[in-house]
Amino acid sequence: MSLINRQVLLKSRPQGIPQADNFSLSSAPVPALLPGQVRVRNIYLSVEPAMRGWVSAVRNYSEPVPIGGVMRSFTVGVVDASSDPAWPEGTWVTGLFGWQDYAVVTASAIDRVITDRDLPMSTALGVLGINGLTAHHGLLKIGEPQPGQTVVVSTAAGAVGSCVGQIAKLMGCRTIGITGGERKRQLCLDTFGYDHALDYKSEAFAEQLAQACGGGVDIYFDNTAGPISDAVMRHLRPGARVVVCGTASISNWDPLPQGPRVERHLLINRARMQGFVIFDHRDGFADALVDLAGWVRQGKLRYLEDVLDGIEHAPDAIASLYRGDNLGKRLIRIASI
Amino acid sequence: MSLINRQVLLKSRPQGIPQADNFSLSSAPVPALLPGQVRVRNIYLSVEPAMRGWVSAVRNYSEPVPIGGVMRSFTVGVVDASSDPAWPEGTWVTGLFGWQDYAVVTASAIDRVITDRDLPMSTALGVLGINGLTAHHGLLKIGEPQPGQTVVVSTAAGAVGSCVGQIAKLMGCRTIGITGGERKRQLCLDTFGYDHALDYKSEAFAEQLAQACGGGVDIYFDNTAGPISDAVMRHLRPGARVVVCGTASISNWDPLPQGPRVERHLLINRARMQGFVIFDHRDGFADALVDLAGWVRQGKLRYLEDVLDGIEHAPDAIASLYRGDNLGKRLIRIASI
Repeated sequence: MSLINRQVLLKSRPQGIPQADNFSLSSAPVPALLPGQVRVRNIYLSVEPAMRGWVSAVRNYSEPVPIGGVMRSFTVGVVDASSDPAWPEGTWVTGLFGWQDYAVVTASAIDRVITDRDLPMSTALGVLGINGLTAHHGLLKIGEPQPGQTVVVSTAAGAVGSCVGQIAKLMGCRTIGITGGERKRQLCLDTFGYDHALDYKSEAFAEQLAQACGGGVDIYFDNTAGPISDAVMRHLRPGARVVVCGTASISNWDPLPQGPRVERHLLINRARMQGFVIFDHRDGFADALVDLAGWVRQGKLRYLEDVLDGIEHAPDAIASLYRGDNLGKRLIRIASI
Repeated sequence: MSLINRQVLLKSRPQGIPQADNFSLSSAPVPALLPGQVRVRNIYLSVEPAMRGWVSAVRNYSEPVPIGGVMRSFTVGVVDASSDPAWPEGTWVTGLFGWQDYAVVTASAIDRVITDRDLPMSTALGVLGINGLTAHHGLLKIGEPQPGQTVVVSTAAGAVGSCVGQIAKLMGCRTIGITGGERKRQLCLDTFGYDHALDYKSEAFAEQLAQACGGGVDIYFDNTAGPISDAVMRHLRPGARVVVCGTASISNWDPLPQGPRVERHLLINRARMQGFVIFDHRDGFADALVDLAGWVRQGKLRYLEDVLDGIEHAPDAIASLYRGDNLGKRLIRIASI
């Protein structure tokens, strides 16, 4: 009797933001284990803004998910069958195991074993996963914060942004969070400890930003591009660093959208604007996770999770993220431990 | 009998590129020397693209030249009267002595004494002045060239660009120069040793650029911004560095002109875009000048000068530069040594 594997497949290539009808739910038998393989039973599936790029045919940092293929995704799960003695049953693992119940893989596909079992398993996809690691690397290695500097974060209440804001505070910076809507703005202030939080949908946004920035912006951690960034770029201080992490506000990159040119901001402020892709920096993950898990345990790094129950929520999940429906890291729970 | 000082004054604040009628020629007596002062007799006046910024009221890295003030300019000249024993008559000096015959200053206004008297005095304003220093710092410290990498330079035949291209070759890079017109294109190939030279006015420019770039661009030394940069940005290679040095193709920065957004280029290529202002890096000038003068003496760093005779050419000189009239470093000779 073979196990049934529910899978979310990429049905068609989206124009812009992937919508529910770009995906289909399907079932297939779980393949038998070959020697050296392990079977991972997924518990949580991740939903990332970056998934838009993963399914796009526009040139990117990774190969696009093929049409008909299982949607690429980080997941966290349990090894529930193993023919590799190094990976016993019951091991908690995370990796790119896809939007499906089961992944049969060799050990090389496992990103890491989760040993911090005192913390919720789900954190391995968020604050102790790619989101926390992205915030840690982007802010500390590219942003290079110094005590007393001013750090502005877009999507400030999001899974990455909320970590950036809190780590910046831990580094002694003054933090300004930009988010959409009053509820998230309050979250920035109450939960994530930003010194200022601004709603970019407010009519007075430009004015409020100018006021909050005061003497200028030393680091802009940019998760949006678009009009929010255009507003922030006007306030760079000499020597500023712009960390280009995401482009959530841009619905389509082909053709390239227009915006105010940045060269003069960079020139007169001797400023730097730099992109990064977190997967280039795996060497630093172990050390960063020690920092992140430590801060979580000490209550210095707070996180929110927005969990949907059931794999049937997956197809709409990316579109929902871009609509800003979520409050905290969007996860899909498809099984119990 | 007091000496007469011919001066070029800023008559009105230009909108965009400064034109001849923004300046006026005037005469005034040369002030008497106070104790500790020296009188510099200017021989060559410099003309720089950056002068546009110096006369603009739009926020910049320096205070705007006041209306009615002598136009700010690097010059090279001779100390012809001195009440400071450290600066004897006959010393060759360079500094911001302005578009005028004489500057009466204290020693602190002198940028440097020219000791390389085997080389033409005028080089202190170009290849051994701010242009060569800009190329040296921008390419080596911000661009960080590695042997075998591909370097693209805009305004490739210009005073800065021509140095960048040649220094990049000295570092073992493959060089692609972008310039306007067939004459300058040939100059790039024949005089400045670029591996490829492209005329951005050519209808086939985008195609030629794609072909010349081949596997992509590691360093883009940007002197123009605008459509030339937009074309180059499409060819960045992972890890690319964009050195933002000048914005010659932009006629007006207020309001900010629109262009294709750069965030995605920077993100997927893990690329860096960085502005600099050479005056921040005076500590490195002495060492850089040893390099530059050495290369000039060895014939490895060639330069062209485009000298106008007579101070009456000064008012139109900036506009002329932006029209692309010059072939090589634009200087104005106003006296003999």
